[in-house]
Amino acid sequence: METLRNSLRRLAQAEMQTDPAHDLAHLDRVWENARRIAADEPLCDTRALMAAAYLHDLVNLPKGAPDRAQASQLSARRAAGLLPSLGLSPDRIATTCHAIEAHSFSANITPETPEARILRDADRLDALGAVGMMRWFAVSGGLNRPLYDPSDPFAENRAPDDRAFTLDHWPLKLRDLADGMLTATGRSLARGRCALMHDTLAALAAETGATLPDSWRP
Amino acid sequence: METLRNSLRRLAQAEMQTDPAHDLAHLDRVWENARRIAADEPLCDTRALMAAAYLHDLVNLPKGAPDRAQASQLSARRAAGLLPSLGLSPDRIATTCHAIEAHSFSANITPETPEARILRDADRLDALGAVGMMRWFAVSGGLNRPLYDPSDPFAENRAPDDRAFTLDHWPLKLRDLADGMLTATGRSLARGRCALMHDTLAALAAETGATLPDSWRP
Repeated sequence: METLRNSLRRLAQAEMQTDPAHDLAHLDRVWENARRIAADEPLCDTRALMAAAYLHDLVNLPKGAPDRAQASQLSARRAAGLLPSLGLSPDRIATTCHAIEAHSFSANITPETPEARILRDADRLDALGAVGMMRWFAVSGGLNRPLYDPSDPFAENRAPDDRAFTLDHWPLKLRDLADGMLTATGRSLARGRCALMHDTLAALAAETGATLPDSWRP
Repeated sequence: METLRNSLRRLAQAEMQTDPAHDLAHLDRVWENARRIAADEPLCDTRALMAAAYLHDLVNLPKGAPDRAQASQLSARRAAGLLPSLGLSPDRIATTCHAIEAHSFSANITPETPEARILRDADRLDALGAVGMMRWFAVSGGLNRPLYDPSDPFAENRAPDDRAFTLDHWPLKLRDLADGMLTATGRSLARGRCALMHDTLAALAAETGATLPDSWRP
């Protein structure tokens, strides 16, 4: 397993277009999350799951790119071309590629296997918790997006707009991410991570002399 | 006071070059911090402090700009030109401008007045706590800097390098920021905010399957 992991890490590092939220460290974390979830799930092909975790972002298109909804399918296709060289069987490659193509929100492909459900949860978990906050703020900083609206930081008197303000991504997407998890362990880990994020947002409110609205609770 | 604050906010918004870490919301927070510290300090000119809080970043040069060490003096000079129109007396303008020029690390000017000590602490406080983390990660994301070194996230077997890795800014600068505070209230608020950041870094370590080294404790 450790030999396969080293090969997958080398492959990903050579092939992947990286940014601060999608790099080798992200792949290591998604694999760590996937391992934790898989420990509670029966009947999982661990090698296929590992391959999917390390190759799921082979094609990483920037937010706003016209073919972004196809990125996970393009990644699966590239993985299918690369995996025979690592000695994976055709069945295992098919399992890997289905997990890769079904992991993304925008592809809108139903995960049909345990491996696909685990990978999806593992990848979404990396948007939550302490690491989720780092990635959230780093991505927003990369887009030069203001942290919040100084006249209404928590969107209490306007519609939230996460293209305009970083914080608005919480009520629009992150706050409810745990509800969409497909595994019990993924959901439970996600709830813990959302609680940490909520506590940090409450601390932010207090630091600015404000109070976080009740509607921002996960 | 509220009239002066509105005039200062309008002035700053019209004159300041903003980025996600230096915008009107940053000025509002620095003023909020300054107010809290000033409540425990005797003999402070509140109007001069408010003017300094809102105009301290009038000249906001990007990291790496050759004249960045002069930014606080350039800000003070521009504030001196703008403040007579708000009806501040020459003495009060001098107090404001000294606080502005002495607030920055790189200018290396000793803060000689209560207002200057309070502004410096108030501005540094905004690098700490929940808001400090948002700004830290947003600035790093804007520089496309990786979050951490996947082979040694907490710089246990190499020298920390915050030009290469976002997290390394903690042991190199942020972790010890409370020690350099010039007011008792600033120091106490800074210690609380550093504790929150340390807890978040410990959570990050746990999420990645690692343990935060003891040396990362503030």
